Amino acid sequence: MIKAAIVGATGYTGSELVRILTNYPNLELCAITSESRVGKRFSEVHPQFRNIVDIPLIAQEDLAATEPDVVFLALPHGVSMDFVKRNVNARYRIIDLSGDFRLENAEVYQQWYQQEHCYPDGFAQAVYGLPELNAERIKSARVVANPGCFPTSAILGLAPLYSTAGKHLGNAIIDAKTGVTGAGVRAKAGTHYPGVNENFKAYGLRNHRHTVEIEMMLSQAAGQNVIVQFTPHLLPLDRGILSSMYLQTDRPWTDAELRSLFLDFYQHAPFVRVVDAAPELKQVRGSNYCDVYPVYDDRTGQIIVLSAIDNLVKGAAGQAVHNMNLQFGLAETTGLTQIPLQP
Amino acid sequence: MIKAAIVGATGYTGSELVRILTNYPNLELCAITSESRVGKRFSEVHPQFRNIVDIPLIAQEDLAATEPDVVFLALPHGVSMDFVKRNVNARYRIIDLSGDFRLENAEVYQQWYQQEHCYPDGFAQAVYGLPELNAERIKSARVVANPGCFPTSAILGLAPLYSTAGKHLGNAIIDAKTGVTGAGVRAKAGTHYPGVNENFKAYGLRNHRHTVEIEMMLSQAAGQNVIVQFTPHLLPLDRGILSSMYLQTDRPWTDAELRSLFLDFYQHAPFVRVVDAAPELKQVRGSNYCDVYPVYDDRTGQIIVLSAIDNLVKGAAGQAVHNMNLQFGLAETTGLTQIPLQP
Amino acid sequence: MIKAAIVGATGYTGSELVRILTNYPNLELCAITSESRVGKRFSEVHPQFRNIVDIPLIAQEDLAATEPDVVFLALPHGVSMDFVKRNVNARYRIIDLSGDFRLENAEVYQQWYQQEHCYPDGFAQAVYGLPELNAERIKSARVVANPGCFPTSAILGLAPLYSTAGKHLGNAIIDAKTGVTGAGVRAKAGTHYPGVNENFKAYGLRNHRHTVEIEMMLSQAAGQNVIVQFTPHLLPLDRGILSSMYLQTDRPWTDAELRSLFLDFYQHAPFVRVVDAAPELKQVRGSNYCDVYPVYDDRTGQIIVLSAIDNLVKGAAGQAVHNMNLQFGLAETTGLTQIPLQP
Amino acid sequence: MIKAAIVGATGYTGSELVRILTNYPNLELCAITSESRVGKRFSEVHPQFRNIVDIPLIAQEDLAATEPDVVFLALPHGVSMDFVKRNVNARYRIIDLSGDFRLENAEVYQQWYQQEHCYPDGFAQAVYGLPELNAERIKSARVVANPGCFPTSAILGLAPLYSTAGKHLGNAIIDAKTGVTGAGVRAKAGTHYPGVNENFKAYGLRNHRHTVEIEMMLSQAAGQNVIVQFTPHLLPLDRGILSSMYLQTDRPWTDAELRSLFLDFYQHAPFVRVVDAAPELKQVRGSNYCDVYPVYDDRTGQIIVLSAIDNLVKGAAGQAVHNMNLQFGLAETTGLTQIPLQP
Repeated sequence: MIKAAIVGATGYTGSELVRILTNYPNLELCAITSESRVGKRFSEVHPQFRNIVDIPLIAQEDLAATEPDVVFLALPHGVSMDFVKRNVNARYRIIDLSGDFRLENAEVYQQWYQQEHCYPDGFAQAVYGLPELNAERIKSARVVANPGCFPTSAILGLAPLYSTAGKHLGNAIIDAKTGVTGAGVRAKAGTHYPGVNENFKAYGLRNHRHTVEIEMMLSQAAGQNVIVQFTPHLLPLDRGILSSMYLQTDRPWTDAELRSLFLDFYQHAPFVRVVDAAPELKQVRGSNYCDVYPVYDDRTGQIIVLSAIDNLVKGAAGQAVHNMNLQFGLAETTGLTQIPLQP
Repeated sequence: MIKAAIVGATGYTGSELVRILTNYPNLELCAITSESRVGKRFSEVHPQFRNIVDIPLIAQEDLAATEPDVVFLALPHGVSMDFVKRNVNARYRIIDLSGDFRLENAEVYQQWYQQEHCYPDGFAQAVYGLPELNAERIKSARVVANPGCFPTSAILGLAPLYSTAGKHLGNAIIDAKTGVTGAGVRAKAGTHYPGVNENFKAYGLRNHRHTVEIEMMLSQAAGQNVIVQFTPHLLPLDRGILSSMYLQTDRPWTDAELRSLFLDFYQHAPFVRVVDAAPELKQVRGSNYCDVYPVYDDRTGQIIVLSAIDNLVKGAAGQAVHNMNLQFGLAETTGLTQIPLQP
Repeated sequence: MIKAAIVGATGYTGSELVRILTNYPNLELCAITSESRVGKRFSEVHPQFRNIVDIPLIAQEDLAATEPDVVFLALPHGVSMDFVKRNVNARYRIIDLSGDFRLENAEVYQQWYQQEHCYPDGFAQAVYGLPELNAERIKSARVVANPGCFPTSAILGLAPLYSTAGKHLGNAIIDAKTGVTGAGVRAKAGTHYPGVNENFKAYGLRNHRHTVEIEMMLSQAAGQNVIVQFTPHLLPLDRGILSSMYLQTDRPWTDAELRSLFLDFYQHAPFVRVVDAAPELKQVRGSNYCDVYPVYDDRTGQIIVLSAIDNLVKGAAGQAVHNMNLQFGLAETTGLTQIPLQP
Repeated sequence: MIKAAIVGATGYTGSELVRILTNYPNLELCAITSESRVGKRFSEVHPQFRNIVDIPLIAQEDLAATEPDVVFLALPHGVSMDFVKRNVNARYRIIDLSGDFRLENAEVYQQWYQQEHCYPDGFAQAVYGLPELNAERIKSARVVANPGCFPTSAILGLAPLYSTAGKHLGNAIIDAKTGVTGAGVRAKAGTHYPGVNENFKAYGLRNHRHTVEIEMMLSQAAGQNVIVQFTPHLLPLDRGILSSMYLQTDRPWTDAELRSLFLDFYQHAPFVRVVDAAPELKQVRGSNYCDVYPVYDDRTGQIIVLSAIDNLVKGAAGQAVHNMNLQFGLAETTGLTQIPLQP
């Protein structure tokens, strides 16, 4: 029996964690915290959980008394770092879903997040929680920095190539498209229904924070400095990220060769499906799968990789539970058998 | 261990049944049939199941050899009746998701479905599979006629009233709104994306087949003849039915009294949630819940009941599995713990 | 040449007025005001107007100097009343798109809007601006109270019946469904994209302000007190209101008789189309049409009327321009030839 | 007075042409043909036109008798070529909205469209109808080949660069996203609502026909061979194409320099708006505008250009009317003052 707690229950990653953990075998959800809603039932904040999860929300200060084995931080960046600093030596493992410990150090963080970091030493403790690349380190990590949604999609699509053929590849163009849940639960001008519906646009051109996270991991994979052109776009739908990625290459490939490379690379990765047709967001919705599809265009000399995930599951809560499974020595798929909701 | 088979795998009810049964404890999906796709893998027809359900589709004639304990018919109406006629004495139970055996007899069927019925004797065998009203009869039924999606929504919203206060109530107005999956998996003019998107309309005015199904069950509940004005509308979304129902009444009520009446009526019904605010489709999406909300307007002397379900789950596949649970003496919620996918 | 001004430019009714008036023949848009954005170009607030309407926004205090012939108030209710009070004797006509002067008097207003009214005498001055019913009075009105969006849809669907056969009709059930633009331009929790998309729900049960506005006009039409049960619902789309209306009647009708009654009633109404199939929101989108469709169900003894409008055009800005046409003695369709945008 | 005819009235380009031409000053829509619906009223096929355009559809053989000055062909590719072959010497101008005469010659056509061309000589007659690049030739053209929707978007975004700095630019990556109306009016599996809604995917990888059309025009602009990597994606919305384009460049730029280059290039182009923020589909919806936005990323050495159009207007019917304006010596904006429908 694992006792799990969630810190920060009002957002989408919080409710997705509860959705997954409620049906997780042999796990007790011992605490859900929310500073702003203490005493309210979880199902008052997220009514879809009526009659399912009606436990009251507690304050962070009452968390330790519930004796969790693992604590998921579903907090905004800039807030998580403080929790980690205060509790890094607690008896429980921490899985942080914010961006606070994903990068290499506090300097890079401050450059891209444009705010001070209160716990620079934390970077040395935290392990980047992408199970397909970092499983061994995650197993023993006391603090896991759960990857960003766009980076999960992009890195899983490009890592097989940069890991094995980096010197043949140019920089990557990552044209990414995300559903609106990526913007969080709080209403703002940018998520007003009539502004998103029947609309489509790019945003964050040239300076989105996930750029550096992608470059960090691909550079590690390649053993050389990798630069990416990352452009996110906002789709008029709830869930999902599709990344369309373009790589100039200096030698010819075949589709079969690419498929074989990806199948080998992900042979032990239960959630990456190397598919044989252009992936679709709805084929992964609500599940922890990442569907990837690499092809080569001999007319242009470019490799194209398409990669699809559900941003709230593989891009957040599902990946966090996957990391927990690794930390606790369980089968990687434990509790993560949700089947994509299509249609 | 239950061995379950699905006849007719290409539609949405077929794929929803597979979604639910794949994660069902101690159940083997022994066969999935499709006359048009024999030999193809299930995941070729429904790619969201890649790496999850890759078994080949078989023909109906090979079904018996797989020795199922229960067979779900995910066939169109007019086709199911023939299967039932041929297999009514087989060793397995049958749960028919079509409309072929829901009504009282072949005459009523022919009037509303405007086609001959090939197996009039089947009506006496089949039990209307609405567990909240018919649980005892379902337990021993060899053939269950799984209710229509609109009737499930409407009957669950009105049965508590007609059962207990029928003589105080006028006929019901049922203004129902459904998502597009109710129209099935096959593309047709009426489901062409640009014709549905950003659009809304009524259809089937005055003669929709579900009218008679609703009247049959409410008349049984009331012990008197009940007439309903049923008007379906097409929503620009995938899943869900919201029914807004209006009843003139000849005596005053209070909201508390109505709520109490509904809570009593559904005290043993694990999937009906008597909610305390207007229900929303997304709060039941992907789950087997029916959220109902009755109120009284003393300005107009009317009772309003709002009722929300996922048409593919509580309105089809989930309810079918619920019926199986009753037939096999299992806990009603077995395999039906899917949490609403919101957002 | 008419000189027209718009007070309150940041919302949807403001931008719709500009959309219509920009292409209006022989009209000068002499001023657009916004207290919060003085000095900004209109197209900075509504970028779809770049290179089309780039004039700067001015303050209300500079309005009179532009010498408008007509002023459209695109202000929230509670704000318009103050403008009208101060400017009721100005040389220009006023068309108020808020709810401040639609009802019979300040007492009713205070009861349904739950706030004080600062200008009770204004009710006697203002004419309810539904051209199909009030054209003669509108022509000479100095202040027009432009109808609410739901009332426009409901009254146009029911007035032919209550005007001619009121004593045969029971109270009306109005099950109305609106697009999200009805909630205005400002982002709020209720218009957050993931909360509306793939969702549907009722709101404002039993106490929506438009109830009394509908009852006022139908009672006038019937010459007797009419009560309505009005229930609005929120559709996951931008524009449009479809009202499904149900009337118990004590004598039989035929569809042809109803159609003929409506055609007669609207024979001089250029924007009401009596259609011969269930109306669809997209068939009126972006236009000033109201499509109505009455039928009789002899099985239930009820009349059903379906009515569709674009809430921002016929339900707001288009109707306001229609009122201006009447006030200035112009052809009713002047400037209102927008064709529904379908698909 | 221009007399205009439309051949092929049942599709979206047909109805968009009627929408634009109905409000066009001093123009008579003398004929609308449809071989499959002869005798039906246009508004029976497109009910949004009820009471607006109720003229009967005629057969092509009756077209000449209506004495058109210009004929718009809203026919599928492979069908238009036959009409042009038969009528190239008629007294009227022809504007062909299909792909039959856009390319350089019949050989290229056969390679990319994989079908025979029945009228190879037509290529010499037809002028590629992109007014921003070809205005002079269009003025005297008897046959205009109206550009494809994707090429319009892509070429307008890249032509200023290739025309002036081609030798500094690598090949272009064009990641394009289109609304569903691009797939036409006919229901098919790929446009079934539940398959598109809440979904997103790429299609036509490496071999979409518009690739060669884009390369043809950009190569002409550059005076050198230009290769593009063109990848279309399907958006869950009705109208609009957003192209995100990436160009490696061998010398540094500034945003101001790019903006200035584009403003110069399009200084006489009334429908191209060089905008100063990421363009959005809804800011051009229903209008003939193309919004373009070029920026330079000095971190990666790449130019990014974003370009937005309404595929049915600037990408089809609006551009066709623009071409007619040029052919008849009228102001370019005549009849094309539709303001983007937002929200």
